[in-house]
Amino acid sequence: MNNELKEEREKVPFNVEELTDWLYGGADKVKEKRFLENYFYNGVISKADPSYLSHVEKYEEAIRKVGIILQRLKQLTNKGQYGEELYPKILGGTFIKHLIKEGNPISVHFDMFLPAIKSMGTTEQQAEWIPRAAKCEILGTYAQTELGHGTYVRGIETTATYDPSTKEFLLNSPTITSYKWWPGNLAHTVNYALIMAQLYTNHTCQGVHAFIVQLRDENTHMPLSGINIGEIGTKLGYNTVNNGFLAFNNVRIARKNMLMKNSEVTENGDYVVHKNPLLTYGTMTMTRIGIINEVQIFLAKAVVIAIRYSLVRRQSPIDPDKPEPKIIEHITQQYKIFPAMSKAIVMNISAKFMWKFYYDIMKQIDNGDLSRLSELHSLSCCLKAICTNDATKDVEICRLSCGGHGYLNSAGFTDIYKMVTPAQTYEGENTVLFLQTARFLLKSWEKALKGLKLPSTVAYLKYHINSNQKQKESFDSSPRGILRSMQSTAAAKIATAYRHVEEKKKTFSEEESRNFCGLELVKISELHGRVFLLQTAVNELEKVSKKSSPQLSYVFKDILELFTVDTAKNYMGDMIQHISINSVASERLQGRLVAVLKRIRQYVIGVADAFDFSDEILDSTIGAYDGNVYKRLIEATSNSPLNHQPVNESFEKYLKPFMKSNL
Amino acid sequence: MNNELKEEREKVPFNVEELTDWLYGGADKVKEKRFLENYFYNGVISKADPSYLSHVEKYEEAIRKVGIILQRLKQLTNKGQYGEELYPKILGGTFIKHLIKEGNPISVHFDMFLPAIKSMGTTEQQAEWIPRAAKCEILGTYAQTELGHGTYVRGIETTATYDPSTKEFLLNSPTITSYKWWPGNLAHTVNYALIMAQLYTNHTCQGVHAFIVQLRDENTHMPLSGINIGEIGTKLGYNTVNNGFLAFNNVRIARKNMLMKNSEVTENGDYVVHKNPLLTYGTMTMTRIGIINEVQIFLAKAVVIAIRYSLVRRQSPIDPDKPEPKIIEHITQQYKIFPAMSKAIVMNISAKFMWKFYYDIMKQIDNGDLSRLSELHSLSCCLKAICTNDATKDVEICRLSCGGHGYLNSAGFTDIYKMVTPAQTYEGENTVLFLQTARFLLKSWEKALKGLKLPSTVAYLKYHINSNQKQKESFDSSPRGILRSMQSTAAAKIATAYRHVEEKKKTFSEEESRNFCGLELVKISELHGRVFLLQTAVNELEKVSKKSSPQLSYVFKDILELFTVDTAKNYMGDMIQHISINSVASERLQGRLVAVLKRIRQYVIGVADAFDFSDEILDSTIGAYDGNVYKRLIEATSNSPLNHQPVNESFEKYLKPFMKSNL
Repeated sequence: MNNELKEEREKVPFNVEELTDWLYGGADKVKEKRFLENYFYNGVISKADPSYLSHVEKYEEAIRKVGIILQRLKQLTNKGQYGEELYPKILGGTFIKHLIKEGNPISVHFDMFLPAIKSMGTTEQQAEWIPRAAKCEILGTYAQTELGHGTYVRGIETTATYDPSTKEFLLNSPTITSYKWWPGNLAHTVNYALIMAQLYTNHTCQGVHAFIVQLRDENTHMPLSGINIGEIGTKLGYNTVNNGFLAFNNVRIARKNMLMKNSEVTENGDYVVHKNPLLTYGTMTMTRIGIINEVQIFLAKAVVIAIRYSLVRRQSPIDPDKPEPKIIEHITQQYKIFPAMSKAIVMNISAKFMWKFYYDIMKQIDNGDLSRLSELHSLSCCLKAICTNDATKDVEICRLSCGGHGYLNSAGFTDIYKMVTPAQTYEGENTVLFLQTARFLLKSWEKALKGLKLPSTVAYLKYHINSNQKQKESFDSSPRGILRSMQSTAAAKIATAYRHVEEKKKTFSEEESRNFCGLELVKISELHGRVFLLQTAVNELEKVSKKSSPQLSYVFKDILELFTVDTAKNYMGDMIQHISINSVASERLQGRLVAVLKRIRQYVIGVADAFDFSDEILDSTIGAYDGNVYKRLIEATSNSPLNHQPVNESFEKYLKPFMKSNL
Repeated sequence: MNNELKEEREKVPFNVEELTDWLYGGADKVKEKRFLENYFYNGVISKADPSYLSHVEKYEEAIRKVGIILQRLKQLTNKGQYGEELYPKILGGTFIKHLIKEGNPISVHFDMFLPAIKSMGTTEQQAEWIPRAAKCEILGTYAQTELGHGTYVRGIETTATYDPSTKEFLLNSPTITSYKWWPGNLAHTVNYALIMAQLYTNHTCQGVHAFIVQLRDENTHMPLSGINIGEIGTKLGYNTVNNGFLAFNNVRIARKNMLMKNSEVTENGDYVVHKNPLLTYGTMTMTRIGIINEVQIFLAKAVVIAIRYSLVRRQSPIDPDKPEPKIIEHITQQYKIFPAMSKAIVMNISAKFMWKFYYDIMKQIDNGDLSRLSELHSLSCCLKAICTNDATKDVEICRLSCGGHGYLNSAGFTDIYKMVTPAQTYEGENTVLFLQTARFLLKSWEKALKGLKLPSTVAYLKYHINSNQKQKESFDSSPRGILRSMQSTAAAKIATAYRHVEEKKKTFSEEESRNFCGLELVKISELHGRVFLLQTAVNELEKVSKKSSPQLSYVFKDILELFTVDTAKNYMGDMIQHISINSVASERLQGRLVAVLKRIRQYVIGVADAFDFSDEILDSTIGAYDGNVYKRLIEATSNSPLNHQPVNESFEKYLKPFMKSNL
């Protein structure tokens, strides 16, 4: 192991394992995580570097890896140690994204196809489809987005028209913009799809519904007639996830292929509603919490790479009479990486909180109480937007903190970035999500004005109403002080935005008024999300620092200090309009920042190691556990086929003729 | 042409050509630009989409394109219409980066190898090397950066030791970190390199000097003995620029291969200095101005794509009773794209200003006056950092403003982003550059305190000294008002940072004190750069709006208004600490922002078209001139080899066996 890292690790004052256990929710979870990672990753990743392959080769390599994973899954479940539930855990979600870095070509089957049939299918439909799908006898995807419509689902144009004479639905793509576009795994991998289409029956449109449609022959895999299908082309990333396009030309499916749990088309074509369609919000919310959890993991990977590299890399003397310091000694470097680290940890806490929140609300809903659904949904909107924006920004900051070497694929940042940034636009474009949260905040403010009871996550609005009369409260840079200041700031801006929208409504429609105030609405939505993150950080980190060992409790306090101070600095421009912050207070804030960075620097390798990313998962020449950065960088060059011959043929073919042409 | 764009264009109140002429510095320049673009691009780009190729294929395709360009250059120069100077213009710099989007594998030959020999070689050396290099009989690169050292040049470890007995230099790579690493074109393309190495003579190290070294046989292209060479591997982008590594094992070169214009090693090994080494700052400055100009062009490309797409794409009704509006009608969309547009234009102005500034200073230097070199150098440092940071950020914002489709390579953003973001770390890592500017600012403040004369670009510090006593001046949201406020803010923060550094110096060394205040120093450097950009924008745009047609003068006024208001909003948190800004003033600022966005939206297609990017240069399915977004997206899918067969072989090979295995 590199001596620099060895010495750093010897200085860590706390038990790294204790922190790991907390991050992953307990020692047993960590144990299982390590078992599964070792069992499934071992020998499958980092064998070849796909970045040298052609697009087709990349796809085929991904399918090959899926085949290996499926075999290992089968072997493991056959032992009886795990049941079917292991399939979605390994092949859906984040786990496999460390293994197939440009996206798993059968992920949507487990992430959406199966869950959607469970949530939208009747008992009979589940009995018909789930067993075959669970066995992977059929592979499916979820096809909603179209060329012309993404986030605005109601706008999709694919039609499913019921024909009572044959008791079938007729699927068509009436326009060029109605092409299904983006669904993952759709292009060449799956043979079935859940198609979201406008349902027409008795010449009436009943809105968007879900239909199970076979796309390819189960034996030959040839596309069925009336189906125009293919992939949408190369992207910044996710090039092995096989995003597809799909157009229907009079494709007929049986009536029973419409998922009818929530609403039904009877044999004679009558449309009957069974359940509150609102419930679909539940699925969207779940997906968004999953995204928060996923970007948190990828951000943490970037942070770990940047920290380890910064503890090995020496550059630019601070004092010319001394040897070049580790770049981590530059306070500017600490300020790039450590706040990102604190955000990854706070996102981790927040995702856990949101999961609990989600299951509580779902229980209430099962008991017929929908009262808190909109609170949950609107919170998941702004949090998904904030966390994906932050993670993308900070992954880039971590890459840039490693200088030029961060630009090399072998450093690991490229794959992470390509995986994180699309989350800013998929599952709800972030600006649209902010605006949805804002609508909830305006309604909540109205409630507050009327003195009605407020849901817990917006309860801080109440406080502001009562304190409205008082003069600007003065800034206090303690964690709880910063939380209070951000709450007052958010509340004040929500009040202002509400007033502006109401003023506009005197002359414009409500929608036009909201658009006119769009910039303010995005801002209040963001501030509300920040308040939630601060609240969660303060509550959870204070709690755990009480429960944990004295050595580790200091770490939690430092993380909380850094996260709150960093947030305060980033929102100074907003806060200062509503809080009185004199120059002394803002210098004190700067002082706290510098002090906490210095403290964290002393043990930061311990936090990095605690994230417990194996070298296979990190797959980084400059971030590996042993810190042998330069040796690994040079070794990685042997992966380049260009280096397998001393002279590339293009010299004789194109260059030499010209160089010898005596210009 | 798409009707939406047709109607938009009919509404443009000004002459687009007039704006184009201004952007490119005159009608004649535009005429030549179009001629050269048409002559060289025609039929060479967009034929095949390289993103589907393997790494090796991408490189060979790039070399093939270079071959075509060289042929066309030869034909054109043979006609006598152009001379040799056309080669660097076409094959160096930005021009060819629209054609070979992952980097021209012989660019460094023209960008650095030739210029460096001219600036560092004696008359005899120039006579020996320039003709052969100009004819491309030999191809060279510039090899400075090493595995262990980039921005900190003095740290490089490659040694060139003079041996008087043979009158040769002995080149060696003593450590693993001394491997040359990153030089473009080095790996498999060039056969010569200018090697920057620590010169040792008479057992003394004389620092970094330049040596011309042959790397490969001119006929076989085989690496010469003692030379270990290859490529460093795949990167986020620039994958055809052939970045290489290089290690020397006792490689001998003639004494005359050291470039000796500035300093010399005599035959018996004495070291003699001729010229002030300071002058190398000139070259670095020139490179950085070139970068500012380049990122401005790439940012403009992203802006044009986003604008055209936003004028065609319809999504999310603002008013449910009305059809879905063009997404540009959403004020949140305008606020994403239009400020980026104003920044591209201000960077364009600033690059022009800096070129003039540069040539003025060079003239002074030729007359022995080095007094303003440090001002020029420090200004180019913070501007390069700010412009590359802004361009990268805004290219991403433009991509995200196009939703999921922006993530498709065919949209064009991927190539732009990959080209812009590395500029944040190459030619001086941005944080290091900010800190260099800061040192100049601290020195300038000291001068100001002593009442000494200040260089023009920091003259605003003077004003602050005199106004120090006065109370906070109140905010005025006019362009010149915002400029004044930013000047006062920058000056105040420079004063504070100076005070903090001086305080630290009582206990720490100057370097440690500066590191302790590193975050403040980066901030003042950034603020200083913003002040310069504001200053330039105000002066140039006011000037041109007076000279131009009435219709266009309004456009320049709007651009200035948006740029200044946007800057003010982004730096509110800093300004408000030093300027008195009441809620009325900040609401007025918000009002100005909304109003100017509304005005620009009306004619924005005219500005987009004025950037005069041909469809070949833009190479974007969603940003093409005709606006046929969806048709082009679907057509582009035929470029994917995966779509050339209905069933990929991986189905039979890996998937089917498992799906049929009856799990």
